[in-house]
Order: sequence, then structure tokens, then C-alpha cells
Amino acid sequence: MLIVMQPGASQEQIKNVISAIELQNLSTHIIEGVEQTVIGAVGDSHSVPKEIFEILPGVLTVTRISQPYKMASRQFHPQDSVFQLDGFAVGGKDITLIAGPCSVESRGQLLEIAQAVREAGANALRGGVFKPRTSPYVFQGLGEEGLEYLAEARELTGMPVVAEVMSIAQIEVMVKYVDVLQIGARNMQNFSLLRAVGETRIPVLLKRGMSATVEELLMASEYILSGGNSRVMLCERGIRTFETATRNTTDINAVPVLKSLTHLPILLDPSHSTGHVGYVASISKAAIAAGADGLIIEVHGDPTHALSDGAQSLTPEQFFGLVKQIKAVAKAVDRKLPKVNAKARVN
Amino acid sequence: MLIVMQPGASQEQIKNVISAIELQNLSTHIIEGVEQTVIGAVGDSHSVPKEIFEILPGVLTVTRISQPYKMASRQFHPQDSVFQLDGFAVGGKDITLIAGPCSVESRGQLLEIAQAVREAGANALRGGVFKPRTSPYVFQGLGEEGLEYLAEARELTGMPVVAEVMSIAQIEVMVKYVDVLQIGARNMQNFSLLRAVGETRIPVLLKRGMSATVEELLMASEYILSGGNSRVMLCERGIRTFETATRNTTDINAVPVLKSLTHLPILLDPSHSTGHVGYVASISKAAIAAGADGLIIEVHGDPTHALSDGAQSLTPEQFFGLVKQIKAVAKAVDRKLPKVNAKARVN
Amino acid sequence: MLIVMQPGASQEQIKNVISAIELQNLSTHIIEGVEQTVIGAVGDSHSVPKEIFEILPGVLTVTRISQPYKMASRQFHPQDSVFQLDGFAVGGKDITLIAGPCSVESRGQLLEIAQAVREAGANALRGGVFKPRTSPYVFQGLGEEGLEYLAEARELTGMPVVAEVMSIAQIEVMVKYVDVLQIGARNMQNFSLLRAVGETRIPVLLKRGMSATVEELLMASEYILSGGNSRVMLCERGIRTFETATRNTTDINAVPVLKSLTHLPILLDPSHSTGHVGYVASISKAAIAAGADGLIIEVHGDPTHALSDGAQSLTPEQFFGLVKQIKAVAKAVDRKLPKVNAKARVN
Amino acid sequence: MLIVMQPGASQEQIKNVISAIELQNLSTHIIEGVEQTVIGAVGDSHSVPKEIFEILPGVLTVTRISQPYKMASRQFHPQDSVFQLDGFAVGGKDITLIAGPCSVESRGQLLEIAQAVREAGANALRGGVFKPRTSPYVFQGLGEEGLEYLAEARELTGMPVVAEVMSIAQIEVMVKYVDVLQIGARNMQNFSLLRAVGETRIPVLLKRGMSATVEELLMASEYILSGGNSRVMLCERGIRTFETATRNTTDINAVPVLKSLTHLPILLDPSHSTGHVGYVASISKAAIAAGADGLIIEVHGDPTHALSDGAQSLTPEQFFGLVKQIKAVAKAVDRKLPKVNAKARVN
Repeated sequence: MLIVMQPGASQEQIKNVISAIELQNLSTHIIEGVEQTVIGAVGDSHSVPKEIFEILPGVLTVTRISQPYKMASRQFHPQDSVFQLDGFAVGGKDITLIAGPCSVESRGQLLEIAQAVREAGANALRGGVFKPRTSPYVFQGLGEEGLEYLAEARELTGMPVVAEVMSIAQIEVMVKYVDVLQIGARNMQNFSLLRAVGETRIPVLLKRGMSATVEELLMASEYILSGGNSRVMLCERGIRTFETATRNTTDINAVPVLKSLTHLPILLDPSHSTGHVGYVASISKAAIAAGADGLIIEVHGDPTHALSDGAQSLTPEQFFGLVKQIKAVAKAVDRKLPKVNAKARVN
Repeated sequence: MLIVMQPGASQEQIKNVISAIELQNLSTHIIEGVEQTVIGAVGDSHSVPKEIFEILPGVLTVTRISQPYKMASRQFHPQDSVFQLDGFAVGGKDITLIAGPCSVESRGQLLEIAQAVREAGANALRGGVFKPRTSPYVFQGLGEEGLEYLAEARELTGMPVVAEVMSIAQIEVMVKYVDVLQIGARNMQNFSLLRAVGETRIPVLLKRGMSATVEELLMASEYILSGGNSRVMLCERGIRTFETATRNTTDINAVPVLKSLTHLPILLDPSHSTGHVGYVASISKAAIAAGADGLIIEVHGDPTHALSDGAQSLTPEQFFGLVKQIKAVAKAVDRKLPKVNAKARVN
Repeated sequence: MLIVMQPGASQEQIKNVISAIELQNLSTHIIEGVEQTVIGAVGDSHSVPKEIFEILPGVLTVTRISQPYKMASRQFHPQDSVFQLDGFAVGGKDITLIAGPCSVESRGQLLEIAQAVREAGANALRGGVFKPRTSPYVFQGLGEEGLEYLAEARELTGMPVVAEVMSIAQIEVMVKYVDVLQIGARNMQNFSLLRAVGETRIPVLLKRGMSATVEELLMASEYILSGGNSRVMLCERGIRTFETATRNTTDINAVPVLKSLTHLPILLDPSHSTGHVGYVASISKAAIAAGADGLIIEVHGDPTHALSDGAQSLTPEQFFGLVKQIKAVAKAVDRKLPKVNAKARVN
Repeated sequence: MLIVMQPGASQEQIKNVISAIELQNLSTHIIEGVEQTVIGAVGDSHSVPKEIFEILPGVLTVTRISQPYKMASRQFHPQDSVFQLDGFAVGGKDITLIAGPCSVESRGQLLEIAQAVREAGANALRGGVFKPRTSPYVFQGLGEEGLEYLAEARELTGMPVVAEVMSIAQIEVMVKYVDVLQIGARNMQNFSLLRAVGETRIPVLLKRGMSATVEELLMASEYILSGGNSRVMLCERGIRTFETATRNTTDINAVPVLKSLTHLPILLDPSHSTGHVGYVASISKAAIAAGADGLIIEVHGDPTHALSDGAQSLTPEQFFGLVKQIKAVAKAVDRKLPKVNAKARVN
């Protein structure tokens, strides 16, 4: 860490900072500049918060050199993390393609979409059963009933299922049914929930908060990893900016940035990051071209009657067309969609 | 609601929209423009989500006219909400002045600060016992032990106490000790928690999320109000923008905007909204001048050894000086700090 | 336009709004809602500013239905604009690939880079001669001397040249030398300059301001188009957000959004939108996959000694490798890099 | 400057950085950390751009310690800058209160408003004659005719006049008529214009760009100051954020931040920073309470027929009421509105 003193800081203030550094078992190194003194704190400071020094009298700024996260860092784990998920590999050459409805609305709806996306080439199924909704007056999800339908859809199609967990109390029931626990954008810094999920051994899909920096996303993943759960996928889903032409702004830069900072697999959610069905294909292709390891896309059999997020859901036909385009782009960047065995359709 | 059709939308698409409107028990009204058709949906649409129409074929945009919240709205409750809190009135002429440490660190620390801020003129005490921290490697709070110290501080000083609740499981123990439950910025859209707090009858201090719009803040308050808990204070605590000179950007505009949209009391947290002790006095005065009903300010007996957020904490001496300035500005805008009876200091 | 009246607006206020609408030669259409009245203003309102109505007493909001720009709009010009530029087509199947140094630094530097990027496959050359710099203390460009080198580079390589114009006074000399005038992000709303450039008949590359909305970009292009200059290319170059991991945030969503709103060709500048050479390849591929019509990329023979923006410049070798990858992605989305005849190298 | 090397940077790369530092006549100081090496560059580096080092191989980040501006810095000019403007002092105890219409629309309109704001207590008059407008289809200002009316209004009321300059070509005519040249937000980084204005000796009111950082605003002022023009006022006028409830977000934090970084006077424009007449009074009082040296407020005799920005203009009556409130707040923070001699009204 580099502690820059204010111009005119006293010798006593400098000594005080040195003592504080030594208290953390770090050694010090002093640079006397023309206007200011800089004190380097040398040693393993991953778990030393900057604030300890920021508030000392005479300190101007504190700059961290080593990253504040460790287990998520590519520095400590240079190889890409790759893990198996029901027959395909997340984070390797395979593109992970998760598709399904925003909300599970009924058994019939879910099974139909599940089969359709499987036939199109999806390798995992998404579906919300507990829904975080801005308004208390709208549909809030089917709860455990929805989980049963998800399990049935897995049985039918062979795809692992992904669903969002919103509170610690839901974990117990969810682990019985789902293959991947999703942490939604609004809960990215719900640290109690992150810790609880870190204690499970189920893969986690962690979505970036809508105003979270890339560093904060990595710190959030550290909560899960430090609990012993190493199978974490990160997901860019758009950030909040001044632009109102789309629901969110897809931070496509985050794909190569995350690839350079972490070994964890990176997914992108073009449905939420654009909020508009007309832009999903374009952004899906961009994500794969940029180096993302996968996509999570909303598909609904009848978007015009969806109980949530219909505006951003593709029809199965649109999804089918998109998968073809994704395959072409994946090939151009030396990736591929894994072959899937669509099980026989049950009527 | 106003549904604007795309240029060239077909008669069938228009009919389809009309059917969807009527299904919601709203009546329709059509404007044929030069390029486009607009369909008005007339009736009580507070609980009808826009999305139902946005995803219909041929629809360009849907504009909500009535607000998506009701109980929080000044339209439905024109008078300011004023409620008593241990001898003073929140939301009236009195300025609510909540002060205390970011974290409760020890019994001695808390009791000393509590007495100091009381003597300076604070009318409520804040102190975190469960801390949301970006990094899993730093101090996470004292838990129930901290709550006991808060209760002791209340006994000693006569001030009601405010503490942040981070998960549903904490509510049961917290309601035994605290007078006001705070929902932090990171949990503003933790809807499970909002519902749970709405079922209690304890006043709530709801902080704006760092990238939440004013409308989303009001929607979040609606979750609490619709549970039957009417004593909600809203708190502006800075939003995230491109500016890096301060930790957050104080959205001072939110003060008059909220005053016009809602009857709920509005507080401002200059410690978090600036992140820097040097700017707290300036922004405290600005908030009162702008019409805020109160302030929540971090004070620490020894900021340079605080376990969290020391950089933004005032010393008791600084706080004492600030209260005098706040009094002068409050008087200039026809408000006042309520007289408090500082109980005798106990040793 | 739709004018929503405040709840409780008086009959007189409503009449007043109707008069104001009729003054603009628009007809009115009234919807009486439960709480509020909405007045539709029907007719050609492209050039009627919203503000005329927003400030009338009793008006709550005014929503524009028709777009505030006309000549840039796809609605009025459904076919993609395609124009020839020295042997290749901007805006059609061909990918426009503009490359070159941030600043023209010397004759030798420019000619060497020009030949290198031409051999790699670029079809136009960029190079700044008047540089907008945040600090008055750094290199500000070679001026007309630089223009002469650009002209020589065109002669040598056969590529058209692009350079930024910073003030009206520079136009006269620039049109003698360059093929495309670039308007930089900082001047996107320098309306005097936009008008002046609109009066020339030289193609314009208009970069999006770092905090400009897509709509404002289109309004800026309208200034140029309405002067009679129809050959305008738009360029996404990153917007300013809270994220600090990259210099700007590439708004990749803007590519499909602009494609749906306008007929003008859309380019993307991955050098500025990321600010970091390590991310340029990833974002270049993403842009083409998303549907952009071209790229403008900084290349420098010796980035470590560049006088400006070295951190984001590729070496000729890196650019050569990137062109191969761009070709593969272009093919995947049914586009292509035009064949170029690299003229013989002159020593 | 502190240059942090990448983990694993080679000895050769480190030597290369050292050479580059020495080339700038700075001396070096090396800290060998556990994972990384840090190189301090010691000496006067105000005019050395960071980029020179950022692009060297093996460099991770470069942190500037001394500020990149010098003449604007409080470090080099500890006392507040105070300058006389036609009988009152900008930047001292006096509050500067500039008021007037967004655009000069006619002689009668301007003279009437000028007298009204003078009687209410304004000490300078604003009025646009060249208007930067987002759309090419709306009123663009009266030009020199408007300047004549401004001069007449000054004669009549004794107030100095402020008007915006949009291009270098306008400076010559403007300096004949106006007392203060305003640089608008859209031109804050129009460096050619900044230089040209810096060569005049007329006071300048420099508005912050809508997405400019505080540091960039100070750098822009450095362009003017380094030309020899020392009478520069800075003006916060709202920044662009995700919040849409107001036209811009008033960055009230910028007031104390700028006060700590620079000696230049700081004004605030509540009309543009809120965009709504209903919020102007609240934000005006907040600005003065926060420590601003003045305000610039739009007033229009008949806002509902204003040719621009009517929605944010006060009537003379509203302004009269506001001045009383501003006086009360100014007194509470030990400032005052200077007495003005309203000349006799001419009919």
C-alpha cells in the first residue's frame, strides 16, 4: 500500500503512520518528494483495509497495490477455472447457454419452453420461482411449486436448472431442486446471503449489481469462495448509466477486464443488459466475440402474456435462429456450443 | 397509462392492445396521430404493471401517468407525516439529528460517544452492530453484544437508538433493543427484508440505494407501508456517479423532489454522501437549507482508530461545533433543533 | 405530443394548453382520466420544442411521440445510407477499418504506420494534427505540417485520410488535405462547428460525446445533415460511467439501438472506449459481431514513445493479428473486409 | 508520481522506466514489494503527463501525487481570489447574485426583467444572445442585437452583464458589450475557445461540463489562467447521472471540494442543475449554506412564453421572494448580499 502524506505533514504525523503500518506486520519504505512524503507499506496486505491509514492525521490518500481479493484473483490462480455441470464444461472451450423464462408461471409453460430451448441447443434451463420485483403489487413467483416444475423439466430434458435465491431461508428448499443457485443483481452485496451460499457446495451464478464496479463484483465472489464454494460463475447483466435508450448499459468492457483479473467463468445476460428483445441477438453475438464463456437468455413461449419481463424475452423461434448465429460467432473465436442430446418430447 | 403504437402498427395490433387494456378493467381512448396511434388506458392503474402492454406486438412505448406507488404518495396523503419518537417529532418543525459511531466497537466507546453527542444536541443515537462490508476480511460487527450496549446508552442518555438490520433472522433480536430499524443502501431492494420489516410496528429508516432512482426509493417504501408499518423515514445518502473526488455524490435535488412527491420525512446522511470528514459540515448545512427534516451523522471518539469508516467520522468536538452551525441554518429556514435534556453523566 | 396535466388542473389551465397547441398548428385530442387529463397534440411536431408546453401552468409532463430529429431518422429514410470513400463503400457489406496514430508526430512516423496498417488491411488512415488535450501543458499537435504528411501518406498508400477538426477556423485548411472531417467527442455539441461542417461537402465522422445520449448524438448529426451534408458516419467511443476499470464504458448497446433509429453508418472506436491496448481486440470483435459498420483503431509504431494516448495504441504487429480475427468475425455475421491494394512500399 | 510495476516485471523493464523518469529531470526512488516494485518519480512533475509512463512495458498503474494543475490550485495560491466587478466583490463575504433571462428575446423583455431583478437585489445581469441548442430547429438567439440590449440594460440598472460566448469569432464583438464572458457546459473542453478567452482580460464564468470531473473543470480553468487572465469564476451547474427526476443532478459536494482545491470563486446555477422552477429556491439556499460564493438564476417576466428554458425560470415575483430567503441563509453562514442602488425605473 502507498500512503501519500499531505503537503506540510509533520514529522510526528509521519511517525504515527509508520507505527500504524508496523502494527499490521508490514514494513515501511519512505520517499521524500519535493512537496510531499510517500510511505510504502510492504508485505502481505490483502486483508488490511485501506481505511486504517486513510483516517490518520496528515494522510492525503492511500493507494492499494495488491488487489483486495485473493481467491478470485488470476494472480493466485493463473489457470481458468473449469467445472463440469451435468455433462458440459463451464469455463473451457464450450459456450454455456442458459435459457428459459424469467418466471416459472405454470407446469405447462415451463415444460414447453424447456423442451423448445433444449432442441434449439441450450445446455441449461433458467426459471425464477422467487421474484425480486420493484413493486409490491405485481406477481412475486410460484415458490416451491415452481421448483417442482423445474425438477420435472430437468428430468424431461436432461438440462441442469438455474434459479435465483433471494434469502437465506430459501436455500434449504432450493438445494433439493436446483443445480445452480443464482444471486441476483439486487443481492450482489447482501453479504449474509453470500456467506450462506458460500457454505453450500452448489455452483453459484453471481450477477453484477447494477451499480457495482468490477472490483466489487470480485469482492462479492470472494465472500462465496472464502466459504469453500469454488464453483462460481460471474455474470455481467448491464449497469446503470445516464443512457435511457436501453434498460441498462451492457458493460461489454467487463468481459475482457474480468478475463484478465480472474480465473472464474464469465457469462453475460443480454436480456437484462438491454431490456429489449430487438437488441438481444446483437448483444449475444458481441458477448461471445468479446470472449464471454456463456450467455443467459430469457425465452418465453408467449412473451406477450408473460407475467414478468416479457419485453425482453425471445420466442422459442427467435431463440432457435439466434443459436445458429451464436454458433457461427463462437466458431470465429475458436469456441463451440457443446452438442446436446435433446431427449424425446413427452406429451 | 398511454400506449404509443409504432408507426405502421396494424388495426389488428391496435385491437389486441385494446383487449389487453379492457382485461385490466380499464377503459380505452384512442388518438389517431399523423404517424402513430396513441391509446389511453383510463381507470385505476396503480397496480397494473407497464410491462403487460410493452410486450404486445406493435407497441412502441408505454408511459405511466399515475405514480406506481400509492401509500407513499403525497397525492393520497397531502399532509406531511409526523410521528413521535421518544419525545420529539420526526417530520415537523423539529430537526431530527441522529449521531453516533459507524460501528459499536465496545461498551466504553459507545457510552462515551453517546453522552458526547447528547450534550452537543443530538436527539437520537446511531450505531452499527451487524455491518455490511465489501470485503469478507474486515470487522463485521459485535452482534447482540452491541445491541446490549445500545440499550444501555439509551438508558443513560434518554435517546432512542437506530441500528441497521441486514437480514430477516436479525429482526427478532433487534426489536428487543432498538427504536428504529435502519435498512441500508445495499438492501434497499432486498424485498424479502422490506416485507419483513413492514410487518413489525417499529419505525424504519430506509436508505436510498446507491444507484436507486427516487421513484425506486418510493417503491421500496411502499413495500414497508403496505405491510401496515406507517412510520418510515427516507434517507438520501449519496448516489454513485462518475465523479471520484468524493465517495458518493450527494443528490441534494432529491430533498425537494421527495418533499414534493411524498409525505414521509426526509433525512440526509452527509457522512456517507461525501465520505470525507472535511465536507460533512458543508453538506449538513446544505441539507437543512434545502428542506431536509434531519441528518444522520457519524461521530467517533477517536476516528483514527475506528474499526470502520473513520475517514468520514467527526470527533465529538467537531460535532459540537457543527450543531451550532446547523442551529443557525435551521433558524434561517424556520426550523429548529428540539431542546434535549442531557441526563447526568454516569461514571 | 402528449401533454399530461397535473391532478386538479383547472379548466382554464386546460384551455390555455389547448390554445398553445393550436398556435403551433396542431390539433388537440383530450383524454379525461380518473385523476388527470391528457391532451394529445396531433400533427407534424418535429420542430416544435417540448418546452413550449412544459412551462404552462397545470402541466405535469410532456412526452414527445415523434422523434425530435428527422433527416437522421430511419423512419424518413428506411434504407441504410451507403457512400463511396475512395474505392470502398461505407455502410454496406464492407467493414470500414480506419487505423493510424493518435497524433501525427513526424513524417517518418506517419508514413511508416500508414504503410503498415495498409498492408495489414486497413482501408483508411487516421491521424490527429490539432489535438484536444485536457492539460494545456502537453503536446497539442503539429497543425498544417501534419496535414501535409497525411496528404503524402494518402499518396503513398492510396488510403483516404481522416483528421479531427477542432474549430471553424481550421476547416478551410483541412478541406484541402483530408477526406473525412472528424468531430471529436468534446465538440459533439459545439453547434457552431457542426453547422460549419454541415456547409462543407466532405464526409464527417461524428463521435458521440462522453455523456451524450444516443438521441443527442442523432440531434447533433441533424445539425450537419440539415446543412446539406449527407455523408455522416456516427461513432460510439465509450461513455462516462461510475466504472473506473476502463477509461470509458463501451456502450455496445448503442450499436443495435442506432441501427434501428438511423440509416447512417455506425462505427466504433475500441481504443478510446476502453483506453487500454489489452482490451482493444476483444471489443473490436464485439463491435463487428454486434453489427457495427466499421472500426477506428489507434496504431503506433512505438507506443511507448507516443506523444499521446500510447496506452491504448496497438503496435503494427498487434494490429496485423487483430485484422485476421476481425475478418473471421465479420464473415460469421455476413460482412467482409474489402480487399485493398497495398501500394509498393517506398523507401 | 508513483509508477507501480506489474507482478513479474523484468529488471530490464524497471530500468527502462527509470530512464524515462530521468529523461523528465525527475529523480527515482524504488520500493521492492512482496509482489511488485514501485518506482517513485521525485521532482516538479506538474507538466509531466502520466501517459508517458503508463505505456511503458511492465507498468501496471501510474498515480499522480501532485495535482495536474498549478495556477488554479489552492496549494500555490492559498488565499481566496477576490476581484471587483462594478462595485461589488466576487469571492469575498459578498454573495454574487446573477439573474436574468435564459435568452434575450426583445428590448422590452430584457429591460423589464433587468429592472425587476435589480430591485429584488441582484448584482449582475445574465442573458443569452448566442444560444447552444440541442436541436437545429429552435430559436438560436438574437446575436449582436441582443448585445446592444444588454448594454442598454447595464446603463439603465448599473449592473454588469454576463453572456455566453460560443465561438472564437464571437469574442471580438462580445468584449465591446459584456463585463463577463460565460463559457457554457458544452464548451468546457473546447480548448481553442478556452485559450482565446484566456488571452482577453475580461472576467470569465466557466461552467462545469455535464460529465466533467472536478479535476477536469480545474484543468479547463488552467487553460484560461495560463493565458494570463486571472479573473475566473467556476460554476457548478449539475452533472449527468442515472436519476431522471431532475434535468441534472446538482453536485453540491463540488462546492466544498472546489473550495478546498482552488482559490477561485465558486458559483452554482440552480436553474440548470435542477431544470425545474419548483426546486430552484431549495437548491439556491443549499448552495449558499454549503459555502458557494454566488448564484446564477434564470428569471423571466413571462416564463410560459419564454423562447427557451421556461420550465426552469422564476417569475420576478418568485425571485423577489427567493432573495429574502437567500439573505437569511447567507446571514446564518456569515455571508451577505451586497446593498445595491436600484436606479430609477425608466419608462
